[in-house]
Amino acid sequence: MKKQLALLLSLAWAGCQAAGPTPHQQDILEQFTELLKIPNIASDRDGIRRNAEAITAMMRRLDLNPRLLTPASAPDAPPVIYGEWKVPKAKRTLVVYAHYDGQPVNPAEWSTAPFTPTLRDGRIYARGASDDKAGVVVILNAIDALRTQHRRPTDNLKVVFDGEEEAGSPHLAATLKENRALFDAQLWVVCDGPVHQSGRSQVIYGARGDMNVNLTVYGPNRPLHSGHYGNWAPNPALRLARLLTSMKDEKGKVAVQGWYDDVVPLGAAERQAIAAASDYDTTLKQQLGLAAPETEWALNEAITQPSLNINGMRSGNVGEQATNMIAPTASAVLDLRLVVGNDPQRQFGKLLAHVRGQGYYVIDREPTADERLAHPLIATMYARPGSYAAARTPMDDPFARSIAAAVRSISTQPIVELPTSGGSLPLSVIGEALGTRSIVVGIANYDNNQHSANENIELDNLWAGIDTYTAILAHH
Amino acid sequence: MKKQLALLLSLAWAGCQAAGPTPHQQDILEQFTELLKIPNIASDRDGIRRNAEAITAMMRRLDLNPRLLTPASAPDAPPVIYGEWKVPKAKRTLVVYAHYDGQPVNPAEWSTAPFTPTLRDGRIYARGASDDKAGVVVILNAIDALRTQHRRPTDNLKVVFDGEEEAGSPHLAATLKENRALFDAQLWVVCDGPVHQSGRSQVIYGARGDMNVNLTVYGPNRPLHSGHYGNWAPNPALRLARLLTSMKDEKGKVAVQGWYDDVVPLGAAERQAIAAASDYDTTLKQQLGLAAPETEWALNEAITQPSLNINGMRSGNVGEQATNMIAPTASAVLDLRLVVGNDPQRQFGKLLAHVRGQGYYVIDREPTADERLAHPLIATMYARPGSYAAARTPMDDPFARSIAAAVRSISTQPIVELPTSGGSLPLSVIGEALGTRSIVVGIANYDNNQHSANENIELDNLWAGIDTYTAILAHH
Repeated sequence: MKKQLALLLSLAWAGCQAAGPTPHQQDILEQFTELLKIPNIASDRDGIRRNAEAITAMMRRLDLNPRLLTPASAPDAPPVIYGEWKVPKAKRTLVVYAHYDGQPVNPAEWSTAPFTPTLRDGRIYARGASDDKAGVVVILNAIDALRTQHRRPTDNLKVVFDGEEEAGSPHLAATLKENRALFDAQLWVVCDGPVHQSGRSQVIYGARGDMNVNLTVYGPNRPLHSGHYGNWAPNPALRLARLLTSMKDEKGKVAVQGWYDDVVPLGAAERQAIAAASDYDTTLKQQLGLAAPETEWALNEAITQPSLNINGMRSGNVGEQATNMIAPTASAVLDLRLVVGNDPQRQFGKLLAHVRGQGYYVIDREPTADERLAHPLIATMYARPGSYAAARTPMDDPFARSIAAAVRSISTQPIVELPTSGGSLPLSVIGEALGTRSIVVGIANYDNNQHSANENIELDNLWAGIDTYTAILAHH
Repeated sequence: MKKQLALLLSLAWAGCQAAGPTPHQQDILEQFTELLKIPNIASDRDGIRRNAEAITAMMRRLDLNPRLLTPASAPDAPPVIYGEWKVPKAKRTLVVYAHYDGQPVNPAEWSTAPFTPTLRDGRIYARGASDDKAGVVVILNAIDALRTQHRRPTDNLKVVFDGEEEAGSPHLAATLKENRALFDAQLWVVCDGPVHQSGRSQVIYGARGDMNVNLTVYGPNRPLHSGHYGNWAPNPALRLARLLTSMKDEKGKVAVQGWYDDVVPLGAAERQAIAAASDYDTTLKQQLGLAAPETEWALNEAITQPSLNINGMRSGNVGEQATNMIAPTASAVLDLRLVVGNDPQRQFGKLLAHVRGQGYYVIDREPTADERLAHPLIATMYARPGSYAAARTPMDDPFARSIAAAVRSISTQPIVELPTSGGSLPLSVIGEALGTRSIVVGIANYDNNQHSANENIELDNLWAGIDTYTAILAHH
């Protein structure tokens, strides 16, 4: 099996570049693909347990003294994996963080099975390949590099691997609070997300918060023939379309009243960083096949604002399974990204008021028969578990700046520094539970299909990522 | 197997009514469930062939001299099954029609597998249970009843079972034209669709036409992380929502320009029939859990107008499979019902002009990379195969009236007569190919979940249907 993979890799390499992977790189790939084979959806407790076992075995070989932590109230929750490397005379403590759970999968949408890691065109395709088992493997191999070279980290080092980040890390706060001494540190560096779209390394000082909302509207209480009842029975797909349309104006701005009200403005350093970040939007539009963006904002500005995105929308069937019918329901999943100043519940409240303002009777469960007859417009709407707020570390934080300097030191190109990521990470959970600041140094290729089918990582990003984290750990 | 079914039926009966099925009814149910086990989606050629074989075997036992007919241009198309009972000295010829193909299925939505017929609460659940293998079994058992009683039909009798009605009967016109002599007749009676919602028998003098339209709009050329790109990359789900919303006004009327322009007004007899049909809408709203209908039209009026219904709508995933992403596409399948006066292509043209009027560049295939960059709004839109126009037989047609009289003669309640069905049947195909008029006498319970999951037929409707068609065939 191992030999087969090595042969496969050699052949794949031969096709695209002169030098093949080194024997050491082949070992890392073997370790990585074995980990990717283990399903890692946070709701799949058996898969999560097997992932945790595989990762702690790797950590034991690196003398990291791994422990599995869950809060007293939820002993069966996907565990936080904790490890440490105590460095005598170190003045500060650094936590490096990644997560080993992944987004849900719809295997029908994948070219190859999501838990059958497959090498194609210099990339490995699998759920978690980039988000975020790459982070786990990069951190552990950076530590391995130091061990092999008989070097030590600059700071006391603590390693944290979350097991339910994609589910919103619902137990992380309790785990951190119940083990406060264990997590004592001055900075967290989060290894999650991509490098800049240009391929340049980036250091990001914050992340947006996140809330997912389930929304369902109703038509008849059973599916109806669209011929016998079309024009007469209300169609929930049209109702949902109208409701979603009401949430944004023609220029792409969220039309929900007060949506942008609570935003804390950026500071001077943050504004300057955005201005200094080169404008990559034109290239990006070209690459993504976009004639125009949704709003007039540039990407780096857009992600400093709260968003409202339709993650999914469904009523009845399309394609070959479509039938001539009026469906009983239409559903959408909305993604609300939050920035510093937004409280998740308050933001949800604005959306709730908006839906009510459109004439809907809003409940958080299925309507009863009586409610159906009493209210022409009924919506079921509630936040999915796992919401959290945004967080930002000031761009002049000295510890953060020394990490950025380490990243810069091994980059051949200028690095990108930005006040926030558009994506979300539970930085606010860490900040609120421990009072500790966090920054983000991602390593994945930007086109990694994170959260979608055919998630992948470029092998070159894996190798560069290990070098980057080796520099971060020993950042003198 | 047969004994098991008989036992099952007896037990099921014992629970809900005093008298069990007669041995003859048990034989019919055995025959019916065997037929329902054979998958009958028009695109599944092997399933269609097996259905045709089973049905012709039944017809041979009834001396109907069955033949399978396909047009010369499409010898592999699902065949029309033709049979006949020549009646000496008969003055007229009657065709009775049903179809043996069914709508596509999404097995995940069914309580029991669509091709595992299941008896529950006095109903048989299966794809085709009501639409329209019930029609096939009702017609053949009405003929069997006459044979057993040594009676003859009033008219020369021709039996036609279509094999791709749910696909829009794309080859029916050619088959009829190529076998014009075989199909020589004065009236077709179509056994498809339900009885009235009140349970009363109904004779319907026409049917709406039908056209299905596939519509897809575009966002980025690959799925994007909704955090990193949300607010910036356009979301196709929102675009589709906005486009669909533009197609209807707040009062449920189609807002596409000229939508209602070509409608040929109903005649006096038709207006009178609608007025005479009792208003069942209040009961229906109660049963379907609807506080209000989509428009101000009563149901019987609504179905005399062209409609625009969203059969299905989809972008990304909802529920457990939802992920935080911006999908590359959003799709809908639209159902356009047509009335007398509407030409399918002209109606499509109005919709096309509307979509263009919303700023869309409209094509009938995937956009190229260059088109994506040149046009902010792109829609792929085309009519699915199998469109046809509406048809109506005048309500004073003498042959049709004698069939209605036969239905009335065995009804304990007044029957319902209406100028058109809301649903579609290829009556216009028959009319255009042969110049022959058609009427519709359906036998299914109105709540049969036709075209949806858990399609079913009440056994009582099956028995009443056989009696109705026995009366129709011998209608003196």
